[in-house]
Amino acid sequence: MKHYDKRLFIQEVATRDGFQNEAQFIETVDKIAMVNALSQCGYAKIEVTSFTSPKAIPVLRDAELVMQGIQRNPAVEYTVLVPNVRGAERALACAIDEANLVMSVSESHNRSNLRMTREQSFAQLEEVFGVIGRGPVAINVSLSTVFGCPMEGDVSADEVLGWVERFAQLGARGVTLCDTTGMAFPSQVEALCATVRERFPELQLTLHFHNTRGMALANALAAIDAGVERFDSSLGGLGGCPYAPGASGNVCTEDLVHMLQLMGYTTGIDLDQVLAASARLPGLIGHEVPSQLLKAGRRLDLHPTPARVTNMLQQVPSALINV
Amino acid sequence: MKHYDKRLFIQEVATRDGFQNEAQFIETVDKIAMVNALSQCGYAKIEVTSFTSPKAIPVLRDAELVMQGIQRNPAVEYTVLVPNVRGAERALACAIDEANLVMSVSESHNRSNLRMTREQSFAQLEEVFGVIGRGPVAINVSLSTVFGCPMEGDVSADEVLGWVERFAQLGARGVTLCDTTGMAFPSQVEALCATVRERFPELQLTLHFHNTRGMALANALAAIDAGVERFDSSLGGLGGCPYAPGASGNVCTEDLVHMLQLMGYTTGIDLDQVLAASARLPGLIGHEVPSQLLKAGRRLDLHPTPARVTNMLQQVPSALINV
Repeated sequence: MKHYDKRLFIQEVATRDGFQNEAQFIETVDKIAMVNALSQCGYAKIEVTSFTSPKAIPVLRDAELVMQGIQRNPAVEYTVLVPNVRGAERALACAIDEANLVMSVSESHNRSNLRMTREQSFAQLEEVFGVIGRGPVAINVSLSTVFGCPMEGDVSADEVLGWVERFAQLGARGVTLCDTTGMAFPSQVEALCATVRERFPELQLTLHFHNTRGMALANALAAIDAGVERFDSSLGGLGGCPYAPGASGNVCTEDLVHMLQLMGYTTGIDLDQVLAASARLPGLIGHEVPSQLLKAGRRLDLHPTPARVTNMLQQVPSALINV
Repeated sequence: MKHYDKRLFIQEVATRDGFQNEAQFIETVDKIAMVNALSQCGYAKIEVTSFTSPKAIPVLRDAELVMQGIQRNPAVEYTVLVPNVRGAERALACAIDEANLVMSVSESHNRSNLRMTREQSFAQLEEVFGVIGRGPVAINVSLSTVFGCPMEGDVSADEVLGWVERFAQLGARGVTLCDTTGMAFPSQVEALCATVRERFPELQLTLHFHNTRGMALANALAAIDAGVERFDSSLGGLGGCPYAPGASGNVCTEDLVHMLQLMGYTTGIDLDQVLAASARLPGLIGHEVPSQLLKAGRRLDLHPTPARVTNMLQQVPSALINV
């Protein structure tokens, strides 16, 4: 028996995971305005930016300015990506609520994405735990390629569980299982999420899906069936995948929330405000976004008889026959 | 407890529901070649074409030529859209296996799509039942806007059940519940499918989803949870929606089958051949298709380290940090 009245928590990643994939710099003032708009939408968390090297990700080189410029909503946790001790020090100086640490559970992807072995990554992140300590700033660890690696293929559940355990032992508050390149499928998601929840009931568990192969919304429902309550999503579906040019990227916030709300779930999200913010993205980044809802509108946004149909009706004895 | 080893049946609609939305005529020889290729893919049914007025849908004006030109696979049922008695007579002359009749369960959509009241449609389709009789040619009825009408909004389950019952009493072998403009959501799908199956266990029940708001794959899984075994889908995701320009149309065959096969379901489909056929679509129709799988490849189509990452690795001390 499913309980569609469950409370779910939505975490916005567009200004970090989305913007970092953009070729052109987005003005600091525009980033701040976007985070401020998102702060009014009902998210549980917003991943604001990344304290990586400005040389590595120039589009996020203004991390401090953005963090200092935003107006915080006390109901929202503000998290940032922290790759190493230097990043942690910069982030702590900006009074973050949470540091989000990242590594891949597959060796090949970690090497290509972070240019280190997994053990080197772990050692570096262990240092970050030392710097942040067990104080007021929480630590989340986003584990990439949990549902498959685009270079190695399948990743075993034992491999994933091993990394979750190591970070749990370091004192992570939460772990995010990331489907980095859209390889997750629903039955796999349900099984892995159930196992992680059973083994680590005290961890704040987040699922991070990509819609690369169209399965993101189905995967989210499978995760909910396994008891997951917390999801990363990206406004407009912003955030691509360098392995599949043209394919969809992060699961789209408005598409996800729209479905969940229709089913009766409580997300805390104001979908009107999310759609208004998403509609501003193309102007900010200079291109369209994958959002289906921006194109089609919500389910009950009713339409007049379309002009094309009306025109055809005047010309011909039969009509379109769309089923 | 879910049974992922279930046998499912996939019905291809691209050459009818997809092609009818194309602005340019597709050469008859190309249509025949496409149907012949699809006949080797393992579909349960192929909706080949439509015996509507050539004036109404000029792109399908060659219905007889296509039906006469294809090489039939005895394992596949060849169905066609039949709008009225004239269409039924033309279709019967082509030795169809099944006639697919269409009407909307919402008055506004039926009027705009078919230019008749629902009662006028029913009367016309009743005549078609009379012409086809209870002989070797089966009759399926595709009910549009079952999960919502883009002009009227919600459609009640009672309204849907009433129309299913009227067609069941006329002797329809099957009924297709069509989510014409992508308004269906998973919990709604599961509830309505369960009710229809319980009330009409003898009917061959098909679900026809559109991905307009991104929910098509999630809806398919919800239908399976309610016992549905049979799905319409469209190669490449071909087939638009006149109410939502730019939005996705019919659920994409390869995206649907890819997910179902990963989960362990038996679909009978040769995904390699489906992908090869889908890859030919842009050349036939002159534009890209919404298929995610055509862009991203299958889950285990592994990738080398992408050039963009490799280039960055040579330039900078850190890298992309895609989670």
